[in-house]
Amino acid sequence: MPKLRVHNFAVSLDGFAAGPDQGPDAPLGLGGGRLHDWVFRTRYGRTMIGEPGGDAGPDDDILAAGDHNIGATIMGRNMFGPVRGDWPDDSWTGWWGDTPPYHHDTFVMTHYARPALPMKGGTTFHFVCDTPEAVLARAYEAAQGQDVRLGGGAATIRQFLAAGLIDDLHLAIVPTLLGSGERLFDNLGSLPGYRVTDMLSTKSVTHVWLTKH
Amino acid sequence: MPKLRVHNFAVSLDGFAAGPDQGPDAPLGLGGGRLHDWVFRTRYGRTMIGEPGGDAGPDDDILAAGDHNIGATIMGRNMFGPVRGDWPDDSWTGWWGDTPPYHHDTFVMTHYARPALPMKGGTTFHFVCDTPEAVLARAYEAAQGQDVRLGGGAATIRQFLAAGLIDDLHLAIVPTLLGSGERLFDNLGSLPGYRVTDMLSTKSVTHVWLTKH
Repeated sequence: MPKLRVHNFAVSLDGFAAGPDQGPDAPLGLGGGRLHDWVFRTRYGRTMIGEPGGDAGPDDDILAAGDHNIGATIMGRNMFGPVRGDWPDDSWTGWWGDTPPYHHDTFVMTHYARPALPMKGGTTFHFVCDTPEAVLARAYEAAQGQDVRLGGGAATIRQFLAAGLIDDLHLAIVPTLLGSGERLFDNLGSLPGYRVTDMLSTKSVTHVWLTKH
Repeated sequence: MPKLRVHNFAVSLDGFAAGPDQGPDAPLGLGGGRLHDWVFRTRYGRTMIGEPGGDAGPDDDILAAGDHNIGATIMGRNMFGPVRGDWPDDSWTGWWGDTPPYHHDTFVMTHYARPALPMKGGTTFHFVCDTPEAVLARAYEAAQGQDVRLGGGAATIRQFLAAGLIDDLHLAIVPTLLGSGERLFDNLGSLPGYRVTDMLSTKSVTHVWLTKH
């Protein structure tokens, strides 16, 4: 059975997935950029931004595992861009330039409809105004037997977690304190269907894996 | 220079130091007892409750390190007991029976005065209605050159953290979700004076060490 998976989702030691004051110049809010420093210290992470170098090792392997056997992606609108409310036009095409790193159908959850947006490299952004269950059904169909990845942000993950739709959730706890911002675990209750299956601390982060049982 | 140290302070993966509905039958709230399971799997933890067995290894060593070179303890009133408001009488003498595991002067922060309470084994509980700075000064004096340990709970640690009084803070992140309760990191800001110096995942918990720099 194909799965819905979350990978490499970074939270600070105090539980924030983004700092305060998110906006065009600070997609992850004040200080939130620190949450991804570990990514760009790895070889795989550096390749993602077209840079040489980076370290091999567990962080590199774990980062790369997030792209294995993924046939479609779902994300929240705030992960796609900083535009809120109605789309003023179709000029915003994501944070990733003209060749986004997805290379498959990517579903952007929003309350504001917009035509599908094909990009270079095989990514097509579909703007979907529907329930998590319905969006997931479309994504599974697009993935043609492969798994679906849920990218984020925190609000979108909370929504899918609360609905019990996520099969595997991998977090990276970053050893920094953001102090405020957007929490991942907030008003979720104890999520009794999920248990932690493993933890691993590296020099950079602590990886935590949760699975629905 | 003697230090103020926090050791083995357990928080859930979602950041709670106690579950909801704390009371006499559930000092750590609903589900909060799970936060200490790892302690009682260690040899040192089992000795604390007069039981044989338990595992050696990093959790055991780290747990034991919390008692090294400690000459006095500070705790919040809720860690001492479930009584709130005025003391109805002096019958409550702590959660620990007639021989508490401190064996030195132990300062209980409260707004409600009460005579000092000498216990078997060298522990004397002093009930102090004063600022964190003043209580800490008394504790350093009582410790006679050794360090002072701040026991908890979460509200007391937050108060000392916000005042920049804690030198070393060791947390144990327990791989469980409590869903609600009392957070350790809440309204603290980014605590710019503190940095994470190390993380270590064992089979049971992830240890995190923060130091004031």
